[in-house]
Amino acid sequence: MLINKLAIIGVGLIGGSLARALRRAGACNNITGYGRDETNLLKAVELGVIDEYSQDISAVVANADVVVLATPLNTIEPLLSSMAATLQPHTVITDVGSAKGSVVRAARSALNNKLERFVPGHPIAGTEQSGVEASFADLFDNHMVILTPLEENAPEAVGLVTRMWEACGATVVSLSVEHHDQVLAATSHLPHILAYSLVDCLASMNEHDEIFRFSAGGFRDFTRIASSSPEMWSDICVSNRDNLLQVIEQFEHRLEEITTLIRDSDREQLREIFARVKRTRDTLLAQRQSLLFRNKPK
Amino acid sequence: MLINKLAIIGVGLIGGSLARALRRAGACNNITGYGRDETNLLKAVELGVIDEYSQDISAVVANADVVVLATPLNTIEPLLSSMAATLQPHTVITDVGSAKGSVVRAARSALNNKLERFVPGHPIAGTEQSGVEASFADLFDNHMVILTPLEENAPEAVGLVTRMWEACGATVVSLSVEHHDQVLAATSHLPHILAYSLVDCLASMNEHDEIFRFSAGGFRDFTRIASSSPEMWSDICVSNRDNLLQVIEQFEHRLEEITTLIRDSDREQLREIFARVKRTRDTLLAQRQSLLFRNKPK
Repeated sequence: MLINKLAIIGVGLIGGSLARALRRAGACNNITGYGRDETNLLKAVELGVIDEYSQDISAVVANADVVVLATPLNTIEPLLSSMAATLQPHTVITDVGSAKGSVVRAARSALNNKLERFVPGHPIAGTEQSGVEASFADLFDNHMVILTPLEENAPEAVGLVTRMWEACGATVVSLSVEHHDQVLAATSHLPHILAYSLVDCLASMNEHDEIFRFSAGGFRDFTRIASSSPEMWSDICVSNRDNLLQVIEQFEHRLEEITTLIRDSDREQLREIFARVKRTRDTLLAQRQSLLFRNKPK
Repeated sequence: MLINKLAIIGVGLIGGSLARALRRAGACNNITGYGRDETNLLKAVELGVIDEYSQDISAVVANADVVVLATPLNTIEPLLSSMAATLQPHTVITDVGSAKGSVVRAARSALNNKLERFVPGHPIAGTEQSGVEASFADLFDNHMVILTPLEENAPEAVGLVTRMWEACGATVVSLSVEHHDQVLAATSHLPHILAYSLVDCLASMNEHDEIFRFSAGGFRDFTRIASSSPEMWSDICVSNRDNLLQVIEQFEHRLEEITTLIRDSDREQLREIFARVKRTRDTLLAQRQSLLFRNKPK
């Protein structure tokens, strides 16, 4: 058995899906949930996602071999502080936060630099839904999990977190904290800001009912991420602020260049850029797919 | 039989799907295709999408009861000019262009203002694919088709184009040319420009291979429209330029406001905006769905 006792702090889309995936793999004996909302925890027990729950964080982590933090980024530091005294020496802690710099700063502060067993992680998977009822066992299949191990980390702690995610069907890769936060600002945080800005912009127009009424599938796909959790995303903006501001600026420059071509009715240049973009997207996403399937654990 | 002889000018994703949908409905006796690329036309015959083809536009339209133009916007005027002399008096002509102002200007010029039977149309449906091999009969099911009838239009011509699209499973609505072009600039043309700008921006970054490698499903959905046809979209940008420039400017203002909140680490305001956006998107897209299903022809 990979993990005897697992504690999931925050049994929502990600925490719930992790529990379901580990059960599917038979990789876990017992799962205890912790959260602020007792109704959600009761629902998680009823759905069979967790075995039991407690709202006493000390009791939850005192018994755990692995603790997974799956709560909004701004709760990481208070949660780590409240559990620091009762963590057992062998317990491995990880998280699923979308920005890693702020998580590592929180852990350094709350755990008094005892970072051998705190392994920061980020599964690159999700939907625009939230809550345990949206969770499902397949969420991580053929998806990547990025770990950003710290130099203080014990190799066996990194190994356990790696095997945990591999048991969920994911491919585990390592990046530095800084690199993770730069890359995610570009591929995830920036697109969310653009989708939120677009929908808010359209909603403020005259006759916005008409505008949404005539939207098609492309618009629904494009704006799907604007239905993501407001709590989680306001947190991410603040946590990864500097990287995000930098990519927003780069995006604005590129948009301005394309806008100038539109203003000039420069059909040829526009076609050339759009063709280059199409090639890039089609090629690199295809590479990404083949990479994932090549790395997939047997 | 709704249509005896149909001519499809441009047998690609939209033209091919229209042919397939009308066959599925048994609404059409004979379909002739016209296009520049003979290989594509041969493929369309082989797939059973069209009955026959010709690269002589006069011959194709001389026999047709309905002519559908499904080619890029900048080809509409030369095509209409080349067919104007041989169109029969009863023949109804329509198009599927994503911008209507430029199409109407082209028709006024090429058809010498004989506009009784030219009914501008735009199916709000598509995928990022192109070509006849990407076409399918269900493309228009539960989708809208916007007609922008002209004051010169004969009512029976508008009626025939309406019934043609309804036979394809679509819901037909009417808008003015100007209103159509404003609404589509917001819901379709702007999102495409944002997606093209984003992918091009990311592709220009250092280590862009890494950046695409760590992208998730949200990124794929968000950028899907950036894989659309470069020819078609450079055309749309030029054809609907003024409306598009206006919505780009409105978008940039909103993005700048949100960027300021990020710079200020104003978590509360960001959360409020993101929650408002989520409500808007969830509610209005839900309304749109119920509207479509209510209006759907029996």
